[in-house]
Amino acid sequence: MKTRVAIIGAGPSGCAQMRAFAAIEQKSIPIPEIVCFEKQDNWGGLWNYTWETGVDRFGEPVHGSMYRYLWSNGPKECLEFADYSFEEHFGKQIPSYPPREVLFDYIQGRVEKAGVKKWIKFQCPVKSVVFHNETNKFHLKYRNLKKDNEYIEEFDYVVVASGHYSFPNYPTFPGMNKFNGRILHAHDFRDALEFKDKDILIVGSSYSAEDIGSQCYKYGAKSITSCYRTKPMGFNFPNNWEEKPMLDKVELNIAYFKDGTTKKIDAIILCTGYKHHFPFMAENLQLKTKNRLWPNHLYKGIFWFENPKLIYLGMQDQYYTFNMFDAQAWLARNFILGKFSLPSLQEQQIENNIWIDREEKLETAHDGVLFQGDYVKELISLTDYPKLDIDKVNANFFLWKKHKHENIITFRDQIYCSALTGNFSTYHHTSWLETKDDSLESFLSIEKGKV
Amino acid sequence: MKTRVAIIGAGPSGCAQMRAFAAIEQKSIPIPEIVCFEKQDNWGGLWNYTWETGVDRFGEPVHGSMYRYLWSNGPKECLEFADYSFEEHFGKQIPSYPPREVLFDYIQGRVEKAGVKKWIKFQCPVKSVVFHNETNKFHLKYRNLKKDNEYIEEFDYVVVASGHYSFPNYPTFPGMNKFNGRILHAHDFRDALEFKDKDILIVGSSYSAEDIGSQCYKYGAKSITSCYRTKPMGFNFPNNWEEKPMLDKVELNIAYFKDGTTKKIDAIILCTGYKHHFPFMAENLQLKTKNRLWPNHLYKGIFWFENPKLIYLGMQDQYYTFNMFDAQAWLARNFILGKFSLPSLQEQQIENNIWIDREEKLETAHDGVLFQGDYVKELISLTDYPKLDIDKVNANFFLWKKHKHENIITFRDQIYCSALTGNFSTYHHTSWLETKDDSLESFLSIEKGKV
Repeated sequence: MKTRVAIIGAGPSGCAQMRAFAAIEQKSIPIPEIVCFEKQDNWGGLWNYTWETGVDRFGEPVHGSMYRYLWSNGPKECLEFADYSFEEHFGKQIPSYPPREVLFDYIQGRVEKAGVKKWIKFQCPVKSVVFHNETNKFHLKYRNLKKDNEYIEEFDYVVVASGHYSFPNYPTFPGMNKFNGRILHAHDFRDALEFKDKDILIVGSSYSAEDIGSQCYKYGAKSITSCYRTKPMGFNFPNNWEEKPMLDKVELNIAYFKDGTTKKIDAIILCTGYKHHFPFMAENLQLKTKNRLWPNHLYKGIFWFENPKLIYLGMQDQYYTFNMFDAQAWLARNFILGKFSLPSLQEQQIENNIWIDREEKLETAHDGVLFQGDYVKELISLTDYPKLDIDKVNANFFLWKKHKHENIITFRDQIYCSALTGNFSTYHHTSWLETKDDSLESFLSIEKGKV
Repeated sequence: MKTRVAIIGAGPSGCAQMRAFAAIEQKSIPIPEIVCFEKQDNWGGLWNYTWETGVDRFGEPVHGSMYRYLWSNGPKECLEFADYSFEEHFGKQIPSYPPREVLFDYIQGRVEKAGVKKWIKFQCPVKSVVFHNETNKFHLKYRNLKKDNEYIEEFDYVVVASGHYSFPNYPTFPGMNKFNGRILHAHDFRDALEFKDKDILIVGSSYSAEDIGSQCYKYGAKSITSCYRTKPMGFNFPNNWEEKPMLDKVELNIAYFKDGTTKKIDAIILCTGYKHHFPFMAENLQLKTKNRLWPNHLYKGIFWFENPKLIYLGMQDQYYTFNMFDAQAWLARNFILGKFSLPSLQEQQIENNIWIDREEKLETAHDGVLFQGDYVKELISLTDYPKLDIDKVNANFFLWKKHKHENIITFRDQIYCSALTGNFSTYHHTSWLETKDDSLESFLSIEKGKV
């Protein structure tokens, strides 16, 4: 019987895995049978926007945390696929910080070209994965939402590519049950216009906090107050954006902070991160980790220690994204095809501990970029994933950090140089702050207002 | 080994089941071992308010649909427990339409008195229930959220009391993904103050629509537009509340209705009902039904046809609530104790078909009340549940309907007569519309402003 590979999720990581197999198949090399299980009715993962929040029409937790007017918060030159440049996809230079729809189009373009859609079972969330030692196979139970029925299939390999920005991490504060207004986690944030003319409290100081705060500013929030646990974001915020120490409690519509100050607020947005949560995996196969650059228990960051036929993609805290998922997927594919073999578990763990030790000593974001860049370099060195000049990509990350610190509201107006093509992106016709139409058509047009 | 009974959920139905067993135990009659699995950290089901929406801190769908300022939408005289009057609990007369906190206190009072808390495993959602023919037992898998671990136990009986107002029924309309503002299902509605000064669109024309619309009116929405599929609610709405035929599509912030009219709106609240959804039950044990007065497949409205050791409580569309759950729980208990035996499946189905035929001929709400009243009468006649004058309760339902039709904004200021005590409730010190403090203390105080 043909080897069977299950891929859980058709987002960027799942698509990377399918693309990796398609790249081999195009060279007439035989590949296993691939089945990709996707909960949504389309691919693209979090880039596939939905207005839905909470629990969806099938009673399933809504997976996506994407919001209406999101633009990439890092330059596209840092996430470019090494085998498919933005220039190839769009046929021209485009600006460096694309809106969601543009990135979705780019992700989709590559996998459409690869012809892998036939492998995907849409609207089929995976319900349980158990490994049977007797048969050496995974029993994977999934639900066909439209047929409202469950099915079990056997697989030789399981690739978990379901992401880790779907299950909210919630803090609690005294008084929340009596707060006068909406309390939501960033996971449920959709349309910033909801907060126009409102006084918004943002809890947290990482990417969601800076970006959702910026969204609310752009779309007319009256004021933004953000609060931090350890240290302030420290950006040059606009006049109506204030940073405070952590929230202590709320009373009706008043927020009390650790420094004794108070502020009247209309809504609370919890930008407090996400949990690695895989309730569909058997207890002994569940990755349990904080969001960190080197999640433990995975050789080369992907192979489950006790059973490397279980592969987790994209579970790292991320500077690198799409191209890192690719490099991981290429290595996973080589392993499945028998072209890459693993050392003993002991040797795996020794190697793994070196990464962990290094990760634990990281002090700055700069160190973190270099660390993850080195990881991607190593993955690429083990596969035939197209050459990618990681030092150049790292340099773009450093530039991005610099631009953000110069001005958190205007950094998206900057341009960067592609490590693939060596070409610089173009400037957008309008600044990010002034662009209210972030459709693909408007973004790709050259002149302001011309679509 | 002692007979083991699992109760899924410690809301009104689950508490009714525990109370039914406690009532017998107090008479020194031996009872089975009872284990009640509750997802939340407290009992009370939907009456246990939480600000949380969507997916909770453990990655579980939030079960409750309760909102901040909810008052009972029917008179308390219609839901009074036959074994525990409001007068007994509060030691005095109180008004007929209590706020959430007051009803929660009442529900809690009875089960605290019965001492059943020791049977409840809190923060333990049930993950799967499978029946094994070989052993004639249910295998119930639950998760201990705090321990982050799963356990399996065997039971002889399973009582599903998890409610059916937790999983949203979603319609879709063209343009939702580009709508300028918040779209939410009633399930996620919490604090009406969020919609102050906003133009609200309510989709639907049943209880959630009338009550959430009234909430938004009370707390200062600029306008309310509600739209219906079949017929308007037809209440005497305030001037800023308009009824329209069903929504056709949305474009940015404009709603288009089936009659060709349009309206600018800031938020969409989908009051489109809930689904009977029991993903934790094995496929062959899942109740699948629309929300109706006589859900099929349950003898006496509770015993699963193919296996009456599986019991569903409270799965009916409801005029009757707490006391109906009680009567069901008392009958379920008698069956489990061997004091009530079931006829053949064929006889069950014949009896069941009589109810279904009658249900299908129901035309008015008046008919519906009589129908469900007759059902509760029959349940009570089969048990020792304390005598309850159903004709008097029916009369209260008719009066409630009349009061609502006279004025949907003021009907909660009316008083009713208890079928238990024969006493009339008192008037509240302040009209519902003018009462912004709906704490238990304020509600129970006699004079306006005195707490």
